[in-house]
Amino acid sequence: MPAANGNNAGILKSGHDARLLSRSNKCGNTSGLAPGYVQTNLIVLPSRYASDFRLLCARNTVPCPLVAESATPGHWGKIKSHLLGIDGETLAKGLDIRRDAPKYNVYVDGKLHRQDCEDIVTEWTDDHVAFLIGCSFSFETALADAGLTPTHTARGRNVPMYRTTLPLCAAGVFRDSTYVVSMRSYPASEVERVRDITRPFASTHGEPVAWGWDALERLGIRDIDSPQWGDAPLAKIDGKPLSSFKNNEAEVPVFWGCGVTPQEAVMRANLEGVVMAHSPGHMILLDTLDVETIRKF
Amino acid sequence: MPAANGNNAGILKSGHDARLLSRSNKCGNTSGLAPGYVQTNLIVLPSRYASDFRLLCARNTVPCPLVAESATPGHWGKIKSHLLGIDGETLAKGLDIRRDAPKYNVYVDGKLHRQDCEDIVTEWTDDHVAFLIGCSFSFETALADAGLTPTHTARGRNVPMYRTTLPLCAAGVFRDSTYVVSMRSYPASEVERVRDITRPFASTHGEPVAWGWDALERLGIRDIDSPQWGDAPLAKIDGKPLSSFKNNEAEVPVFWGCGVTPQEAVMRANLEGVVMAHSPGHMILLDTLDVETIRKF
Repeated sequence: MPAANGNNAGILKSGHDARLLSRSNKCGNTSGLAPGYVQTNLIVLPSRYASDFRLLCARNTVPCPLVAESATPGHWGKIKSHLLGIDGETLAKGLDIRRDAPKYNVYVDGKLHRQDCEDIVTEWTDDHVAFLIGCSFSFETALADAGLTPTHTARGRNVPMYRTTLPLCAAGVFRDSTYVVSMRSYPASEVERVRDITRPFASTHGEPVAWGWDALERLGIRDIDSPQWGDAPLAKIDGKPLSSFKNNEAEVPVFWGCGVTPQEAVMRANLEGVVMAHSPGHMILLDTLDVETIRKF
Repeated sequence: MPAANGNNAGILKSGHDARLLSRSNKCGNTSGLAPGYVQTNLIVLPSRYASDFRLLCARNTVPCPLVAESATPGHWGKIKSHLLGIDGETLAKGLDIRRDAPKYNVYVDGKLHRQDCEDIVTEWTDDHVAFLIGCSFSFETALADAGLTPTHTARGRNVPMYRTTLPLCAAGVFRDSTYVVSMRSYPASEVERVRDITRPFASTHGEPVAWGWDALERLGIRDIDSPQWGDAPLAKIDGKPLSSFKNNEAEVPVFWGCGVTPQEAVMRANLEGVVMAHSPGHMILLDTLDVETIRKF
């Protein structure tokens, strides 16, 4: 069965299989690739920025949930887990951060240097620190299990992601940045159930940050049909552009913190040196199941 | 030497002394009462709301830094610390949360029931859970040590606090709430130094969330001279209302997350049952020094 991401790999059985496929350079985007396994965003920074980046995550836990990082600078295989009760080795056995995302982007002195490259073996140095950040693909399995399959998944499209005017809390060199949000639409009457289902997934953005048609103004989103990343949203009910339901309770936008946020923050900070990241939609998959990351509060 | 808070206690030598004074009902507000000791905001909730409140803090770590909570429901003396490397008993020896704030407010079914009462011994039940939240009085000693004494301290006034339009990340019953911020003014040229000094105090709000005259619009603050809590701010330079320096780089407002935020969130949630809190400005002091709470990232 071909995966929704359009590559020919089919649906894989584990995060480990997804990493091996990425390493063979035969993997497209990872949406729906190995259902139930945690997917993560990647940021690789010169070590002098690592402390400020950790602080950025600690001060903005919803858009920037830090899942793991290099055990020490230069480590691309040995990682330190930030998930309670799960150690780094369990998280991703035999990991090679330089090759285990399907595609990468490389920035030099704040400017895009290489796009969609297959690995970052050449660019990686002993001074680089990698950070893995939770991805909201993780709770989509739980939504589907509750009969609330996101429309983009059902229609084989990518999730729409938007830049907002909602400021991040500044942290050192990372300032003047704003939330990026992902969006899934639901009937207004289902929003509380959607909140309840996604709430426990705190390591992968948890419950929504805003919902309803009036949220657009609060978030500074001008056009729901024109996301900055991913595919334009279609209404579940009739497949028309979602804006055709504007101010209609039958289908309202629901917004979650998005793992593109830290990548945006890093790009806006105009860091000196070589910075690397996964190419959006091309995540690093872990050996851990989403349900294993659920946190009780 | 009389303390800046106007009560006759003088400046006390420890947080423990401050708690004993509060217990004797002879203590006014706690601004500058025992310099260097951590001061905390108090929220006491029926246990059924405890989980959502913990999540609110985890999702909004800057305005709601959780320092400690009741070890189990009903405990007013035994607390569980959330500060790394400091246990509950070390935090506050012989604590009695029901009596160790100088003044309390009691809410029943979302409405103010008793104001500025001396203790909450009568209202406390076996079902109540207390939460202690960091207070930004904590980094004022560090600012003063660097020659950056906040103007309100130098003039013997309370810090100005403002409601903003900046949304909190929702958490269960806690939704539709916004940041409260405290404000201290500095020359624009000193803002980076002020950021650096307060950054390590992550358990007591850390570095500012916004600064400069244009931050007023971003935060939805209409009138800098009319804070919702505390005293109106005066300019350091000439003692006139701070607004007289509007758009002048010689003195710009700098805003931090404020521990009134969780109290506001709790009040807006219209919780059923008996909710208790300290009276603003009347904090519970701990035995821990502010510098002991510094976190490296």
